Amino acid sequence: MDHLQVTFLVDAPPDSAADFVESVMLEQSVETPLDVALRHAFVRENMLGRVTALEPLSATRVRARLELPGLIASTDVAQLLNVLFGNVSLHASIELEQFELPSSILEKYAGPRFGIEGIREQLQIFDRALTCSALKPAGLTVGELASLCRTMATGGIDVIKDDHYLADHPFSPFEERVRQCQEAVAEVAASSGRRSIYCPNLSGTPDDVRRALDFAQRSGVGAVMIAPMLLGLPAFYEIARRDLEVPVLLHPSFAGATRIRPEILLGKLFRLLGGDAVIFPNYGGRFSYSREACGAVTEQLRAPWGGLRPSLPVPAGGMTVERTPELVDFFGKDTMLLVGGGLLDTGEGVLERTRSFAQAVSARAT
Amino acid sequence: MDHLQVTFLVDAPPDSAADFVESVMLEQSVETPLDVALRHAFVRENMLGRVTALEPLSATRVRARLELPGLIASTDVAQLLNVLFGNVSLHASIELEQFELPSSILEKYAGPRFGIEGIREQLQIFDRALTCSALKPAGLTVGELASLCRTMATGGIDVIKDDHYLADHPFSPFEERVRQCQEAVAEVAASSGRRSIYCPNLSGTPDDVRRALDFAQRSGVGAVMIAPMLLGLPAFYEIARRDLEVPVLLHPSFAGATRIRPEILLGKLFRLLGGDAVIFPNYGGRFSYSREACGAVTEQLRAPWGGLRPSLPVPAGGMTVERTPELVDFFGKDTMLLVGGGLLDTGEGVLERTRSFAQAVSARAT
Repeated sequence: MDHLQVTFLVDAPPDSAADFVESVMLEQSVETPLDVALRHAFVRENMLGRVTALEPLSATRVRARLELPGLIASTDVAQLLNVLFGNVSLHASIELEQFELPSSILEKYAGPRFGIEGIREQLQIFDRALTCSALKPAGLTVGELASLCRTMATGGIDVIKDDHYLADHPFSPFEERVRQCQEAVAEVAASSGRRSIYCPNLSGTPDDVRRALDFAQRSGVGAVMIAPMLLGLPAFYEIARRDLEVPVLLHPSFAGATRIRPEILLGKLFRLLGGDAVIFPNYGGRFSYSREACGAVTEQLRAPWGGLRPSLPVPAGGMTVERTPELVDFFGKDTMLLVGGGLLDTGEGVLERTRSFAQAVSARAT
Repeated sequence: MDHLQVTFLVDAPPDSAADFVESVMLEQSVETPLDVALRHAFVRENMLGRVTALEPLSATRVRARLELPGLIASTDVAQLLNVLFGNVSLHASIELEQFELPSSILEKYAGPRFGIEGIREQLQIFDRALTCSALKPAGLTVGELASLCRTMATGGIDVIKDDHYLADHPFSPFEERVRQCQEAVAEVAASSGRRSIYCPNLSGTPDDVRRALDFAQRSGVGAVMIAPMLLGLPAFYEIARRDLEVPVLLHPSFAGATRIRPEILLGKLFRLLGGDAVIFPNYGGRFSYSREACGAVTEQLRAPWGGLRPSLPVPAGGMTVERTPELVDFFGKDTMLLVGGGLLDTGEGVLERTRSFAQAVSARAT
């Protein structure tokens, strides 16, 4: 039988961790006392996991490596999450550090449909990092947002996304916004010969998101944004697999289950389920992610993994144009830098600031 | 304009917390630097929040009370979550302690469709706590699960639910399981005159869940189980509002974002979105929830709240029959005790153990 390899970090003294880790193994497999599981031949042979290693990390912390049976996890995406971090997520002392899927499960997932290469082909940009900015603040009218979108496209931003607070509000209706912003990028492209992608935010229940996606795709947008932890991972997966025809940029809102390591949730699970590009909080910005954490997210998004395409890393969150050279050097070319408020909060005009950002990235082209 | 009242616990020294909390307010409202927001009249007047209090709790911790504008949150359930704990969930130093909705938002949500009273009416039991157990371990055949279901119904369990690892596996197909387990409870009811509810687990993507729900409801089941943090809160909400015709029991799998206090996530949000009964880890069992945390979850599930029906608290997780008197005394009558593995892991037979459990609860009837 095929197994998942799962690594948990556990707050427990190495001397006394074994019993607890054994109970974690039972929790994540049969969820009964061991002797109940042993009574049934099929359960005994197919459903039990195994603790394969217990590594002391400090006086109060161990790394536990577990083999968990693939049969439960293989049936649907919710069961995969159940086995990876379902009930044990309720233990404050446990963090999901890493997982590896057997090929029998991995091959069920297509991962990103476009990925880095597909996004580059849409933009016809191959020699440099990509740029991204956000239409905000929420509360602007559709006309104001479309005008900002036009300015950013003129200034040379590659992907212009909605803020994640833009939904279908009466003061900025979704369909009208999509129409006008898409028109703005189309007009700039017609006159400049340079394409920018407008990327609307899809919010609400799965049916809301599906209806919005349908409208956006019929309007010709080049990408869409979804926050999968808000919507629900299985709900996102269903839409990614069935309805998406353009690249999807994933937003990390509500993803603060810090006890799944960021590189595993944002880097690995988001990619597995189909994220073409993934936003994460950059180091040195508004959020507390370290440089190392950002490097780890990036690594998981781009590393070879079965037949899955690499996803485009999108560092964001309080970034500034001035940091462009540093960030391109750190993240490399296959990256999209997202500067939002930093383009708006400036003495010079938004257009000049946007141009500076686009030029700073172009200057690092290889 | 209507506001949400939101309370965050923040790891920061009281002396220096003010700036950070101000940035949290901006993050959860306009998500731009303040002066960008101030430029636009509509944004300035409608979109900005306010820090209303900063209470020192210790040398390294403060309670921050914020007023956040209701306009963004009012449009859909994903935006409500965005405003409550979207981007700030990415700060490891912040915990969502409490929220209050303005009536303009609260009245959009129907909450539980059955709640405690509706479940009691289905069972025609009004004078005692309710009992619940689980069909497991996964890996049993449909015939074995149905036989266990029959035994538990004969022993007098009120609600017999699937384990959350039961999905639509080849070794235990969903529809066949629902058919046989529902038949088992119907037969026992016909001969004993005492009704037990069989409650199948609905797993997968939203469409999988909807198909399974439809089959289960057509088969006459008395309740269903869903794990909303796995499925996604907006996805659960859509199904609860549109498709559910029977009470829904909510499972806490994947709900370990401990930085939303358990009583707020499991007690308040799960109820708001329509949970009729909510499972949570009981104190003194396999999980680390304290007695106080369990009391707080229960309080939130049952407290008066606008026009919302109370939800039925379902403490679970490594409970034993022996603890019945203590637990009924602690949780009170409007509770359903869930003993799973504790009915299986026993020298006496499952039927005897089940009877003991049912009798122990009946003995505390009022």
